[in-house]
Amino acid sequence: MNKIEHLGIAVKNAAAAKEVFDKLLNKPAYKTETVESEGVSTIFYELGPNKLELLEATNPNSPIAKYLEKNREGIHHVAIAVDDIKSEMVRLKSEGFIFINEEPKQGADNKLIAFIHPKSANGLLVELCQDRG
Amino acid sequence: MNKIEHLGIAVKNAAAAKEVFDKLLNKPAYKTETVESEGVSTIFYELGPNKLELLEATNPNSPIAKYLEKNREGIHHVAIAVDDIKSEMVRLKSEGFIFINEEPKQGADNKLIAFIHPKSANGLLVELCQDRG
Repeated sequence: MNKIEHLGIAVKNAAAAKEVFDKLLNKPAYKTETVESEGVSTIFYELGPNKLELLEATNPNSPIAKYLEKNREGIHHVAIAVDDIKSEMVRLKSEGFIFINEEPKQGADNKLIAFIHPKSANGLLVELCQDRG
Repeated sequence: MNKIEHLGIAVKNAAAAKEVFDKLLNKPAYKTETVESEGVSTIFYELGPNKLELLEATNPNSPIAKYLEKNREGIHHVAIAVDDIKSEMVRLKSEGFIFINEEPKQGADNKLIAFIHPKSANGLLVELCQDRG
């Protein structure tokens, strides 16, 4: 558990949110990326050692679309950088944490990722992510 | 805008949440602090250059108690470290951001802090914080 790799922020309108975050952070986004398998388009900002990731749904079945049906715009998940995602998953499962995906999968930004279910993490949706290097 | 200083996480029961976060982060909290002026007791974890701050209400009028009347447990605010909170507030006000407190105030962990209203930050409650050194 090295640092907060990024915060995933669910937004309804990425173009409008981008205007706000450009001003808030006083810098432009450094990357946009669409991950069709997750149904999201993403906009990345650097914030020192951390990143903010704006998430807009690309279709009505996207997890972000479903999230925004029930919740206001805001932080959707916290991603924590780990060196070895498989060994962290073994450790956390042994402590009783439940994973949404049992095996690491390919995420945005060239990462291997796995999500811990919020029910086992006090309401927080936590993503583990390992840089693929 | 240097980094995510901490994430403030609203919890109903700090003792129960502490058990979960000790296991999640694989380390104990390094500090607890009660800020009576804010109506919160806090538990701090280090996560590399960042911190997680569990927030439990100390009374029914606490902002955290009010928050948990309307929202599930989860991320209450994002604190961003700045070098000079006053100049950042001037810059952000000139960009149209609205502050909840017009002047910096004393926060937990020996910081000067100011909150940006979520309505002006795309739904996000953002805290600026400057180390008092």
